[in-house]
Amino acid sequence: MAQTVTPPRGMRDFLPAEKARRERALAVIRRSYAARGFDEIETPVVEDSARLHAGLGGDNEKLAFAVMRRALTSDDLAAAAASGDALALADLGLRFDLTVPLARFYATHRAALPPVFRSVQIAPVWRAERPQKGRYRQFVQCDIDIIGEAGPLAELELLEATLATLADLGLTECVIRINDRRILSTLLAHWGVPEDARERALITIDKLDKIGAQGVADELAASGVTAGGVAETLDAIANAGWELLDAGAPAWLDEAAYADLLALRAALPGAELVFDPTLVRGMGYYTGTIFEIAHPGFGYSLGGGGRYDNMIGRFLGQSVPACGFSIGFERIVDLVSLDEDGAADSVVLVYDRDVALPSLLALKSDLVAAGRRVRLEKRVKNQRALLERIAADGFDAYAFVSADTPDAASLDFRPFA
Amino acid sequence: MAQTVTPPRGMRDFLPAEKARRERALAVIRRSYAARGFDEIETPVVEDSARLHAGLGGDNEKLAFAVMRRALTSDDLAAAAASGDALALADLGLRFDLTVPLARFYATHRAALPPVFRSVQIAPVWRAERPQKGRYRQFVQCDIDIIGEAGPLAELELLEATLATLADLGLTECVIRINDRRILSTLLAHWGVPEDARERALITIDKLDKIGAQGVADELAASGVTAGGVAETLDAIANAGWELLDAGAPAWLDEAAYADLLALRAALPGAELVFDPTLVRGMGYYTGTIFEIAHPGFGYSLGGGGRYDNMIGRFLGQSVPACGFSIGFERIVDLVSLDEDGAADSVVLVYDRDVALPSLLALKSDLVAAGRRVRLEKRVKNQRALLERIAADGFDAYAFVSADTPDAASLDFRPFA
Repeated sequence: MAQTVTPPRGMRDFLPAEKARRERALAVIRRSYAARGFDEIETPVVEDSARLHAGLGGDNEKLAFAVMRRALTSDDLAAAAASGDALALADLGLRFDLTVPLARFYATHRAALPPVFRSVQIAPVWRAERPQKGRYRQFVQCDIDIIGEAGPLAELELLEATLATLADLGLTECVIRINDRRILSTLLAHWGVPEDARERALITIDKLDKIGAQGVADELAASGVTAGGVAETLDAIANAGWELLDAGAPAWLDEAAYADLLALRAALPGAELVFDPTLVRGMGYYTGTIFEIAHPGFGYSLGGGGRYDNMIGRFLGQSVPACGFSIGFERIVDLVSLDEDGAADSVVLVYDRDVALPSLLALKSDLVAAGRRVRLEKRVKNQRALLERIAADGFDAYAFVSADTPDAASLDFRPFA
Repeated sequence: MAQTVTPPRGMRDFLPAEKARRERALAVIRRSYAARGFDEIETPVVEDSARLHAGLGGDNEKLAFAVMRRALTSDDLAAAAASGDALALADLGLRFDLTVPLARFYATHRAALPPVFRSVQIAPVWRAERPQKGRYRQFVQCDIDIIGEAGPLAELELLEATLATLADLGLTECVIRINDRRILSTLLAHWGVPEDARERALITIDKLDKIGAQGVADELAASGVTAGGVAETLDAIANAGWELLDAGAPAWLDEAAYADLLALRAALPGAELVFDPTLVRGMGYYTGTIFEIAHPGFGYSLGGGGRYDNMIGRFLGQSVPACGFSIGFERIVDLVSLDEDGAADSVVLVYDRDVALPSLLALKSDLVAAGRRVRLEKRVKNQRALLERIAADGFDAYAFVSADTPDAASLDFRPFA
């Protein structure tokens, strides 16, 4: 007997209904970003190992699936066994995000791209995480990035495009939390956290939701960081929002970041932007603004991004300003409600066994030419079960075809209720 | 200085113009197949190694990129070194075609699928071939398959769908060469080729174009196969086409295949079908009809397929009738001419440095809301170079925005010639 056959661990198949739903959502996203001047690009799913492990991916680098070198020799295997370094046997890896490939793409093609390049990437990435509910080892990311624009126009176009796209998907209640890494830096400096301890301190602040202001203060103190007044400051600023700035910014606040934030808010007057000076975001590479999409119905972020000026140019050996925003496609695809816009009338022809094949095909072709989606189904004894299945597959109507059916005009279509 | 940065060997990036072109072609294919009742599915890019190497992939199995097991131990590495079996270190592999994943998908989900399941898969596959002109290590396949239909209706729907789709892509001059593996079998039997030598003999016949009828006869004879009259028969049938059947089929011709072929031709009277009794196609798994797309302008096939009744059910442990057709997307995408159908008017706003960001954003939003695609470009000294670049990027028109521009209605759009 057949054993249970499944996709690889932590990965999913998409059956027709779910695949169609995903493609509809992706089409909405593509259309919205294209209208706003973002250009879609594509890179291979694998990159050379050396680039994947160049330090741009943070902890995600450890989650990269490694692709084995071709034609490994016994010597190669013996050397790997001796050194214990399995990765020496791999020369490629599946990408774990779309940012490292973008940096590589930009280094390869910069001469062919406009000075300010607005890219869209809509593509799967792979991470060898422990599979769990809602976390998969293959999942789609939707990234927009603006490369070559140092000013806040980049942030503005990204924020506007993201909010408009979410609205097109029916997600109108989203708000975007916003902060700036420079503000976090001056806050830590204000607390006396030395520069080489700040990266670690940010990881602690990122746990504010879970461990509270006192928890953060304790952890910072325990790690030997001089941190007076931490809990009090956090309590005072965590939910202050824009009022913190409007009331006259605290002395420790980075001035350039302060000005930029006010400029963003002024330029997007109708947008749901919430200033949150305790927002951190995980990745180490951010250098300025950081964003996160929040939805009142969900405890987790639906996406995020920020400015990362020292990363995209890494493979070029120079600094290139860049800012990006990523929608967490797998998190939103179940939330969106999309009509089957412009979907053709879909019909099923239920045919008798004695219908001549040329007539059956001609009927089908005529209906397709008239703009319909057509499936053929052989008539069976259990007609009710057949019709129920067809209805469940989303078809609009069906008609019987017998050997006497002369043409498409004579078909008697019966709609499903 | 920066070194040259490239995608992995044998793989390609797609810049915006090429990516847009590919997506347009894929949209045409998707639309055409969906209208004809084919349902799109998606599977992960990797499958478990054991399935990829189950013998369904023929020579392509050797070309699979292997993905390393996670957390390999020193013992694992030592064992691989001792046995020389590098593949023991891999538990996954990148798919080399879409047929093995379809067989796995069908085994996983059969209960949720209709008894006759028409699938479309449009997705990349990977093969570690030596890179050469027109051959890439990552490339897109477009497969349609009908599973569960043993009769010629499957072939008919596949042929009609493929020809209609090629026509939608502007490829109206295609013809489909058609044959049946059963005819090849009885031909070989007629020559006295024993059953266990027929697979090998087919490989020889497949070289007919290159080595000629006498070459095939010589090679068959040299391999110890009793093969009298081979060259004469091949010369007589190679270009006979349907006449071979219309004139009264040769005695050696398989009768069932003969009847099926005539039925196919009768049911598709307008289609460009050419019977070629010497057509072989590479894969060993075909059991009945085989097809190949030929175009007068090209010496190579643009796609093909056939019936493979003993394969899709392999992971279920039973035989399931199946027939499929694959368009070689990478071969046709450069041939098709597609209008940017329904593309929005695309415009560039060339803005002065002193334009206030909120006004600039508002202008952009108004134009997007009016259905246009909009890119922002900073005004520069070398205006001519800027406009040339914008025109080359495919935009329809541009307008200058100064600090005095009051609203979108006052923009003076200048079309590119």
